[in-house]
Amino acid sequence: MKPVSAFKTLTLRVYWDEARFEVLDQTELPDREVWRECTSYEDAAEAIENMRVRGAPLIGAVAALGAWVAYERDEDYGEAIERLRNTRPTARNLFWALERMEEAKNPRKEAERILREDVEVNRELGDHGAELLPDECTVLTHCNAGALACVDWGTALGVVRSAVFNMSKEVEVIATETRPVQQGARLTCWELSRDGIPVTLIADTAVGYVLASGKVDAIIVGADRIALDGSVANKIGTYQIAVLADRHDVPFYVAAPTSTIDPETETGEDIPIEHRSEDEVKNVRGVRVAPEDVPALNPAFDVTPPELIDAIITEKGVVEPQEVADLV
Amino acid sequence: MKPVSAFKTLTLRVYWDEARFEVLDQTELPDREVWRECTSYEDAAEAIENMRVRGAPLIGAVAALGAWVAYERDEDYGEAIERLRNTRPTARNLFWALERMEEAKNPRKEAERILREDVEVNRELGDHGAELLPDECTVLTHCNAGALACVDWGTALGVVRSAVFNMSKEVEVIATETRPVQQGARLTCWELSRDGIPVTLIADTAVGYVLASGKVDAIIVGADRIALDGSVANKIGTYQIAVLADRHDVPFYVAAPTSTIDPETETGEDIPIEHRSEDEVKNVRGVRVAPEDVPALNPAFDVTPPELIDAIITEKGVVEPQEVADLV
Repeated sequence: MKPVSAFKTLTLRVYWDEARFEVLDQTELPDREVWRECTSYEDAAEAIENMRVRGAPLIGAVAALGAWVAYERDEDYGEAIERLRNTRPTARNLFWALERMEEAKNPRKEAERILREDVEVNRELGDHGAELLPDECTVLTHCNAGALACVDWGTALGVVRSAVFNMSKEVEVIATETRPVQQGARLTCWELSRDGIPVTLIADTAVGYVLASGKVDAIIVGADRIALDGSVANKIGTYQIAVLADRHDVPFYVAAPTSTIDPETETGEDIPIEHRSEDEVKNVRGVRVAPEDVPALNPAFDVTPPELIDAIITEKGVVEPQEVADLV
Repeated sequence: MKPVSAFKTLTLRVYWDEARFEVLDQTELPDREVWRECTSYEDAAEAIENMRVRGAPLIGAVAALGAWVAYERDEDYGEAIERLRNTRPTARNLFWALERMEEAKNPRKEAERILREDVEVNRELGDHGAELLPDECTVLTHCNAGALACVDWGTALGVVRSAVFNMSKEVEVIATETRPVQQGARLTCWELSRDGIPVTLIADTAVGYVLASGKVDAIIVGADRIALDGSVANKIGTYQIAVLADRHDVPFYVAAPTSTIDPETETGEDIPIEHRSEDEVKNVRGVRVAPEDVPALNPAFDVTPPELIDAIITEKGVVEPQEVADLV
């Protein structure tokens, strides 16, 4: 029997010689660590659609793996790409990864490259971003742009990790709950706590309070898509945090690989915003929190204009939002 | 047997001849309508402390009823006043009602007056505020400043009720969930839906999105305490909505009786902000949403400065925040 060639991170376990992979089911965190096996492109598509995996870089990686599995198992490759492309509309990295897989001569090698590059790129952007932080500071972050949003290391939380582990800076994090899906409470708190990085949870309503009280030195968030004008689509609630940062003169940074910049999207208005089920707003982890007959509006993302962003942190360096077009 | 003299509203059932009253337990809404009997000042204090009743006017009314029950049942009146005063620190109406009860010759008559005045005052301020609204409009509100926050009618939602029922205006409401305690999702949606006023629920993270999309014509919130400089303490999250309203040129109104204005509080900085248990942030209706070992910060209120408030709507008329000192 030949040895299994496996690639394992916090979010993924890939068995290259078996044409299958597993994803950590993030809907079950922080209660349980449950791994879901993917042996078809449909398994990968389902995991993306139902947010078992989420975060723009990880969505891209899982889509690439879904296409690879389809190729290895003789599923229809064109149909696989098409199905995966239609899982979620906003994250640029999904389309970027599938474009690479579509053009690839060797899907296994291309998927491997996408995964390994993601880790490298995050470590590079983490080191660039960490230079921006004071030696002792408190960083507020929204949603989860951590190791759980990527193959490993993280974007916004990659910056925090680089500051703490590579530069010995003392960083505390304030994590917003991030309703409706609570990626801040469930995921950011879980992964930082695991790494021994101090984190305090706040409700999304308390951002203005903590900024007004002077507790925050910098804000760092991830991105789902960056337009050529420097507008950033990210998890719903990002825009209002940027407005508050502006009022309180707290620097507002976006950390994302250049694969999140979309050369086809000119401005923020051109970014499609996904609307998800109202059940996400009317329920919390299976418990109803509002009357059955009341409708809810559930935009999953919003757009922050470039004038509210102090810098965009990429693997190619730290740039002003107006300069992102030069990077792609 | 002499007939029971009872006073009944959505929030209270008072049996004047039996020295007892019942409160609708708002922690059980919207799932169940459970009434809790109060036959001692301790019962009333417990209901306020554990937010079975909440909203500044209702807290004042229940404190007055608690003092009245103590008087009728020969409990120590001074101790009753002191215990009730220490239930929650921020809402002005609590102290205002207890000052009235302390000075009252006839506690039963005084409690009756406080309850009846609250309804009258809300109807008056509702009519004043309703004049400010266009004939067709969408109003965003935060937390619950409705009939459930008062003896009846409501403050912010009293304005909406006056516009709809007294002036035949077409008003739709957008209610923010209002984490951590979800008064918007649980209470505002419930009471508006009961009255047939259209309401849509959003997560607290979606306020910036709905304002940026031009869906909102006015914002109306209640108040827990108004300082003489026109600063307003209200449910956590109010301040950041006011900042967003300012950016998007949407009028931001505060609706409150003049009993919420504190003649002893000069500025917003002098308002004590209650911090509540971190369990409110880490749990939603008994379900854990964050890792056990992560701390949470839970300020229950924030302060909105007068420059972000377009008008304060009171029973004495609509004033600029800088003019509130003239009303007390």
